[in-house]
Amino acid sequence: MVAPLKVGLAGLGTVGASVVRLIESERAQLTARCGRPIEIVAVNARSRNKDRGIDIKKMRWVADPVKLAVDPEIDVFVELMGGADGAARDAVTAALSAGKSVVTANKALLAKHGVKLAEIAEKQKVALNFEASAAGAIPVVKTLREGLAGNAIARVYGILNGTCNYMLTRMEREKLSFEQCLKEAQRLGYAEADPSFDIEGHDTAQKLSILASLTFGTKVDPSAIYVEGITSITTADLEAADELGYRIKLLGVAVKTDKGIEQRVHPTMVRKDSAIAQVMGVTNAVTIDAEGIAPITLVGPGAGGLATASAVVSDIADIARGARTAPFGRPVGKLISSKKLPMQRHEGGDYIGLLAGDKPGTAAPIAKRLAQHNISMESIVQRHSGPVPEGRRAPVPVILITYATTEDAVRKALAAVKRDRVISGEPQLIRIEKN
Amino acid sequence: MVAPLKVGLAGLGTVGASVVRLIESERAQLTARCGRPIEIVAVNARSRNKDRGIDIKKMRWVADPVKLAVDPEIDVFVELMGGADGAARDAVTAALSAGKSVVTANKALLAKHGVKLAEIAEKQKVALNFEASAAGAIPVVKTLREGLAGNAIARVYGILNGTCNYMLTRMEREKLSFEQCLKEAQRLGYAEADPSFDIEGHDTAQKLSILASLTFGTKVDPSAIYVEGITSITTADLEAADELGYRIKLLGVAVKTDKGIEQRVHPTMVRKDSAIAQVMGVTNAVTIDAEGIAPITLVGPGAGGLATASAVVSDIADIARGARTAPFGRPVGKLISSKKLPMQRHEGGDYIGLLAGDKPGTAAPIAKRLAQHNISMESIVQRHSGPVPEGRRAPVPVILITYATTEDAVRKALAAVKRDRVISGEPQLIRIEKN
Repeated sequence: MVAPLKVGLAGLGTVGASVVRLIESERAQLTARCGRPIEIVAVNARSRNKDRGIDIKKMRWVADPVKLAVDPEIDVFVELMGGADGAARDAVTAALSAGKSVVTANKALLAKHGVKLAEIAEKQKVALNFEASAAGAIPVVKTLREGLAGNAIARVYGILNGTCNYMLTRMEREKLSFEQCLKEAQRLGYAEADPSFDIEGHDTAQKLSILASLTFGTKVDPSAIYVEGITSITTADLEAADELGYRIKLLGVAVKTDKGIEQRVHPTMVRKDSAIAQVMGVTNAVTIDAEGIAPITLVGPGAGGLATASAVVSDIADIARGARTAPFGRPVGKLISSKKLPMQRHEGGDYIGLLAGDKPGTAAPIAKRLAQHNISMESIVQRHSGPVPEGRRAPVPVILITYATTEDAVRKALAAVKRDRVISGEPQLIRIEKN
Repeated sequence: MVAPLKVGLAGLGTVGASVVRLIESERAQLTARCGRPIEIVAVNARSRNKDRGIDIKKMRWVADPVKLAVDPEIDVFVELMGGADGAARDAVTAALSAGKSVVTANKALLAKHGVKLAEIAEKQKVALNFEASAAGAIPVVKTLREGLAGNAIARVYGILNGTCNYMLTRMEREKLSFEQCLKEAQRLGYAEADPSFDIEGHDTAQKLSILASLTFGTKVDPSAIYVEGITSITTADLEAADELGYRIKLLGVAVKTDKGIEQRVHPTMVRKDSAIAQVMGVTNAVTIDAEGIAPITLVGPGAGGLATASAVVSDIADIARGARTAPFGRPVGKLISSKKLPMQRHEGGDYIGLLAGDKPGTAAPIAKRLAQHNISMESIVQRHSGPVPEGRRAPVPVILITYATTEDAVRKALAAVKRDRVISGEPQLIRIEKN
């Protein structure tokens, strides 16, 4: 009988409790798959006596997570406390430094200190696994780290935030306003009381920084990412997108360009017949474009106690089997600096939504400004409003789809259109992602 | 500098040549990811001098694949010859027995001799990797073998044959007949001159036998699979499916039941809004239902030189990194026997297409027979044909959707309906897969 893998687990929230349950219920299978049993021998959480529906009596209670991290009995430290700094960082650093392998679901910790932690793991020849940190139960970390090792990957992009995708789905399907959907999402527990971290794109950016590193060997660095959330998206945008054959999704995109690795998070127009466009509700998805082959898309639950726990347990199982991969797929010394590419130099097609005065020839000055900046249009749709009382007419939406151009050119053209006073309000700009 | 991993490669067709190219073009990345270079040192193929667009001059030529397999210089033998027996089996057996790790894309070999080969690999403590054997570039073998180690999986199903999915897609979209689509598929190289292996479901069954083993720990055994191809599917079926909110896909399904692991391949009605229903053309997809979490679906190219090669290279990279997993995820001694569950005991909903005489009350005797066998109907659609010359009327389609029932009950009910002489021709029965 091979000795069991002994686990110390810090954090007994929904995910932590599910990890305890899963390791218990799948004991026989895990032992067969790993060649040895996995045993949680010691735990830590904020409160010892809270009822979590699990039996932790046979596990040792260690009041200090850092002490648990370096406990001589444990082989692996599982960090499910959360937080980019504080106890989570101290405990993970201590565990790795003491030669313990670490499993964590903590995207904030990895986004901020991932390179430093990977360095310690490498020096100590231990594993640092974090499948659950991006896209929940979808095995995308393993796929990028090991599964596509031989591919030249050109681009990776995904729906990484369930809250935003849930809101966009309901706005599209039920023509509900952003505010109504946000309230619904909060009521159902899909959005936080302070939703800004999700809806402004920062959660997606943290996850993207991890996926970009695994894909392109960049140092994890969310500050290298252009971030724009979904707060400006209206049902009118979603309807216009639909008519043009698109859906709007909040995507995290990392793409190889001749200027470096471009990383960005923003609302994105994706063709309705693409795999990513089919992903509705809280579901997550990641598409990987390797050179020379059709895209690979992985779809699944991005959050939830059991979904996240299943990724954590597969990480523990890898350690039990003796597998150890460089945390970001390559030695830390080979990781390249993430530099933020100026978004002005981004190239791609755009959806532009304007409100123009409803009189003959409004489209002409707009088209002229775009032409002056060498922007070609794939389509332009102008709707006329009916007559309104007193003979005045309401502004009408003009929707433009451009061919690939630089962001700089579009921004300049739109500024000129604004100066021309042929539109009212702010232009809406939504980037198109080819797929 | 760590010693390179030395590879002997047998088979230089489209896939083999792509493997050579990929290892060459991705050399720097592979070395960084694996911690050591990968070098193809010796090769074998049917013809030495054929122009394959690759330079094999610096590799040793070994005329006999079995000799190559045991060549003292190589660490890994890569088998890309194909065939369930003969040289492929001899060479792989010889390599494993000589303590070499093996990478193969050969589903036929694995389906027939997988258990025996895994036994040798286990005894010799070497790797036997076969990511490319099912669903091409989609990392489904790794996902099932390692990525979801901690999940209790209830069901795995997928579109595993690009030829069939291509044909069904064109039949559905362009209302082309089965025969027309087959000709088109042959012209485009998506179908063989003798297409029976694909269209009768046997290719899907071989791949399913591998996925079922990885998922449920069954011994790979295609003879334990109920197999039905797509040759009976008509455009009328596809249209009726569409109207009812379904698409028809050839699926391989392995599902845990209280009688054991049910494995089956047959045309299947899947809800149009499911992830698997979106998969069009030659693309493959696999959905994994783990208990308690939303399904995980992996979509991507199932065939093609570079797509298959990318899976082969990731298998080689795993070996270069020193990773070794039990070929079917568990020790051979723990694999359970695959027994063929009698299809009569299959339980599920069904689509039934009949041609009934167009006179009042035709549906009544049909409904009566179903009721006699305790089959509840979710819907019944009967169309009346218009009047035809001479006052006779053509038979009209009657489409029934049943709630879950046993296959035995449906078969008996349909036999009774036939005996009643209220229908003409054979009833069409297409199983519904809930998703």
